[in-house]
Amino acid sequence: MAYRYPSNIELVRESFARLPGIGKKTAERLAVSMLNWDDKHIQEFAQQLLALQDIKHCKICGNLSDEDICDICSNTLRNPALLCVVETVQQIPAIENTGKYTGYYHVLGGRLSPLDGIEPEDLSIDKLLSRVEQGKIKEIILATNPDVEGEATASYIANLLSNYTVDLTRISRGIPLGADLSYADAATMGVAMDARRKMD
Amino acid sequence: MAYRYPSNIELVRESFARLPGIGKKTAERLAVSMLNWDDKHIQEFAQQLLALQDIKHCKICGNLSDEDICDICSNTLRNPALLCVVETVQQIPAIENTGKYTGYYHVLGGRLSPLDGIEPEDLSIDKLLSRVEQGKIKEIILATNPDVEGEATASYIANLLSNYTVDLTRISRGIPLGADLSYADAATMGVAMDARRKMD
Repeated sequence: MAYRYPSNIELVRESFARLPGIGKKTAERLAVSMLNWDDKHIQEFAQQLLALQDIKHCKICGNLSDEDICDICSNTLRNPALLCVVETVQQIPAIENTGKYTGYYHVLGGRLSPLDGIEPEDLSIDKLLSRVEQGKIKEIILATNPDVEGEATASYIANLLSNYTVDLTRISRGIPLGADLSYADAATMGVAMDARRKMD
Repeated sequence: MAYRYPSNIELVRESFARLPGIGKKTAERLAVSMLNWDDKHIQEFAQQLLALQDIKHCKICGNLSDEDICDICSNTLRNPALLCVVETVQQIPAIENTGKYTGYYHVLGGRLSPLDGIEPEDLSIDKLLSRVEQGKIKEIILATNPDVEGEATASYIANLLSNYTVDLTRISRGIPLGADLSYADAATMGVAMDARRKMD
C-alpha cells in the first residue's frame, strides 16, 4: 500500500486535486506546503472560500458579481449600442484590460458542444435575444473562442440574429503580436494570409 | 486600472497565489473554477484547511503526524539498526513507496545553504546526534538530494558522525531507470561511469 500522509493532509490534497489542472503530485505539494502557513493565513483562506458562496451571477449579463447587477451593467457611462458576447466570465478581464472596449457584455456560460451534451438551451441565448429585442444594441461582437466549438457557437447565434437589424462582428484572428512567424501553425498562418489588410 | 473580479474572488485568488508554483494567472483560474463547486465541497475544503492546524511534527523523527509520535516511529516491527536521513517530509513517501526500506527516518527540515541563511543549527542535527548516541543505529543512509547543497549537508553530517561506530551510506546516483542515455546530462553520465559496477 502506498504511503499516506496524516489524514488531515490527505483530505486537503484531495480537495486541491479537484481543481482543474492540479494533478495528484501537485496537490500533494500544495497540501504539504500549507503546513508552513501561519494559522492566521490558513484561517483567512478558509473564510475566503466560504465567502465564495456569496458570489452571484449578474442578472443582466451573467458576469460574476457581489450584487444582483454587476459593476459593468450598472455603469451607465458605457455604450449601450455595443454588446460583446463571450463564452465565459474569464474572458471579460481579457477584453476589459485592453481598455479599448466601452460596451456591455453577455456571458453565454459555455459554447455549443453536442459531444459534451451542451445544447443551445444550456447557454443563455434566450436572454441574449431578449436583450437584442429591446432595440438599443447596434453591434454585437461575437467574441467566442477561435476554435471549432467557438466558431460553431458564433455561427449559430449569427443565424438566430439574422432577422434583427444589428451588425454582427467577430474578433479578428491571426498571428499574435510578438510571435515569431517561423513557429506559426499552418491554420493560423492561413487565416492571417486570407485576412490580410492594406497598409494605411 | 486592470479589471478586477468581485472582491471575494480576488481574495481567494491571492491566497492561491501564495502557494508554491501557482502564478497569478493560475490562481485566477483556480479561484474562478471554485465557483462551480457545490457549497458542500467548499465548506469541506474550508474545514480541511482549518484541520491542518492540528498536524504535528513527530517528536522523534520530525515526520508529519496526527499524534506526538508518527506512525513509522511507533511501528516496533521496523529495523532499529537502520536510519535514513532526509531533507524534508515529502521525501519519506518516495522512499516508503519503494517497499524496500524497513528502517526509521530522521527529517532534517532542510539542507545547509549559507546563501539562504540556513546554518547547521537550523536543521535538526543535534537531535540526530542524540539518536545515534543511543547506540542502536548501525547504518545511517544520508538521503539528501544529489545536488550541491544536499552533498554539502551530507558531508557536514558525515563529518560529525565520524567518531561514532555507524556505517554511513549515500543513495546511489546515476542514470534513472527508463531514461534515454542520449539525453543524459554530462554530470550525471560522469557519475554513472565512475560508479559503474561489475555485472553479476
